[in-house]
Amino acid sequence: MSPAQARQRFRGGARVPTAGWCRGWTQANLIAVPKSLRYDLLLFAHHNPRACPVLDVGEPGTWSTALFTGDLRTDLPGYRLYRDGAAVADLGEVVGEWREDLVPFLIGCSFTFERALLAAGVPVRHLEQGTNVPMYRTSVPCEAAGRLSGPLVVSMRPVPARLVRTAVQVSGRYPMVHGSPVHIGEPTVIGIRDLASPDFGDPVEVRDGEVPLFWACGVTPQAAIMASGVEYAIGHLPGHMAIMDVRDDDYRVP
Amino acid sequence: MSPAQARQRFRGGARVPTAGWCRGWTQANLIAVPKSLRYDLLLFAHHNPRACPVLDVGEPGTWSTALFTGDLRTDLPGYRLYRDGAAVADLGEVVGEWREDLVPFLIGCSFTFERALLAAGVPVRHLEQGTNVPMYRTSVPCEAAGRLSGPLVVSMRPVPARLVRTAVQVSGRYPMVHGSPVHIGEPTVIGIRDLASPDFGDPVEVRDGEVPLFWACGVTPQAAIMASGVEYAIGHLPGHMAIMDVRDDDYRVP
Repeated sequence: MSPAQARQRFRGGARVPTAGWCRGWTQANLIAVPKSLRYDLLLFAHHNPRACPVLDVGEPGTWSTALFTGDLRTDLPGYRLYRDGAAVADLGEVVGEWREDLVPFLIGCSFTFERALLAAGVPVRHLEQGTNVPMYRTSVPCEAAGRLSGPLVVSMRPVPARLVRTAVQVSGRYPMVHGSPVHIGEPTVIGIRDLASPDFGDPVEVRDGEVPLFWACGVTPQAAIMASGVEYAIGHLPGHMAIMDVRDDDYRVP
Repeated sequence: MSPAQARQRFRGGARVPTAGWCRGWTQANLIAVPKSLRYDLLLFAHHNPRACPVLDVGEPGTWSTALFTGDLRTDLPGYRLYRDGAAVADLGEVVGEWREDLVPFLIGCSFTFERALLAAGVPVRHLEQGTNVPMYRTSVPCEAAGRLSGPLVVSMRPVPARLVRTAVQVSGRYPMVHGSPVHIGEPTVIGIRDLASPDFGDPVEVRDGEVPLFWACGVTPQAAIMASGVEYAIGHLPGHMAIMDVRDDDYRVP
C-alpha cells in the first residue's frame, strides 16, 4: 500500500495503530503548536536530538509539508488534543481544531527501522501481536528549552539476548529516527515500574531469555506539552503515525 | 593558553584571527539576531546542518551561554555589525551595540578539526602562513527558512593529492563542526572564480600537486543576513572566533 492509499483509508475513518503499515515508507510523529511556541519547540528538539529528530516543519496554519503531501488534519488515523497541558480529547480528525496559528512539526519514529530489524532476524513483538508498541514516561528529564520541559518517553521492544547486539547495530544505522537504544535491560533504572502498564500504546509479552530494549520516542514532545502546561497543541494519537512520502532507506547511514 | 586567558587578551584589544589559538579548545562562529528572527535562524540552521551546526544558543539580551562563559560582547577579537543586510562596521567590541532583544547563536567552526588534520600529517596552509583561512561565497544556495536565504560559504584548505583521502576521513570524524568537505577540486564547479580573491579572510598559496578542499563554513549565516536584508545583526569578524569552554574532542565521533 502506498502512503497516499493509507492516508485515504485513515481519512475515510480507519482508526488503527500504523506499525507495519506501508512497509518501507517512513512514519512520523506529529506535534502542532501555536506559533508563539514554535521557537521553544524547535530549540527543545535541538537540545534533545535522540528523542526529537525533526524531519520536517510546516508553515503556520498549513497542513502539509514538503515530505508529507497529504492533509495533516485528516490523514492520520488518530489525534490527541491538548488544552492547558491536559489531553482533553482523542479525535479521528482535527479540521475544526487546526487553528490558523498552529505550526506542524514532524518528528522521526522508530517504526522506521523495524523493517531493518526484521530483515536482520530480530523479532518485533508488537508486530507479531498486531498491537501498538508500548511506550513509557521515564524518570530521565529532557533538556529544557524556554517554556518546554518534561520527561524522556521511550518505546520498548523485547529482544532475545543473543540478538541485542544486532538490534543495537541495526537501529544505530538510523540516527535520524532515534538510532540505537537509550537503555538496555532493567526498566527501573529509567523509572519504569511495570512493563505491563505502558503510559501509551499496548503491553507486549516479554519472554524468558529476552531483554527489554528502550528507544527514545517521538511522543516526548507531547509529554513536554503536558508537563509544561502548554495552552493548546495537537499531536498524533501515540502509535497512530503520519505516513510520509519518504522512504526508510532515506534515513539510513552507511 | 586557556580559553579564559585568550578571551582576556581579546578583551584587552588584541585583534587577530584565532586559527591556531588555544589548540584543543573549540572555536565557534557568532551570529546574534533580533528575537523576532531567532526561529527563522534556528530553522535555517536545521535545514543547513553542514554549514550551520548549532553548538549553543543564548537567551535574549544575554552575552554568555553554558558553553561560552566569557562575555560575547567583548571577548572575541573582532565583530561585524549589520544593518539592513549591509556590513556597516567592523568593531573590537560591541557592548553598546548589543541590543536587549539580541539572541546569540554559536555555530561550529572547522578550526576545530585542524589539530586532528595536523596530527594526521595533513598540512594546514593558513597556519603555516600565520594568516586567516580563506573563505568564499559559492553559487550553491542554502535551503531557505522563513525570511532567511543565501549562498553557502566555504573555507578552503589546499591538500597534497595523496593526503586528500586522509583529510576527508579525519574531518569526517567531526560532523558537528562541518565534517568532511562539501567539495573537492575545481573551484568553478561551486562558483568560485579566483582562489586568490577570497570573500572573507586571506588568500593562501596552492602549490603544484595540491587539491583545494572546501568545507562548509559558519560564516554562512552572515551571508544569509546580507542576502536577506536583515535589519540588525552582529557576527564575529570572519576568522576571529569565539573560543569556547569545550574541547575539540567533545565533537569527535568514534
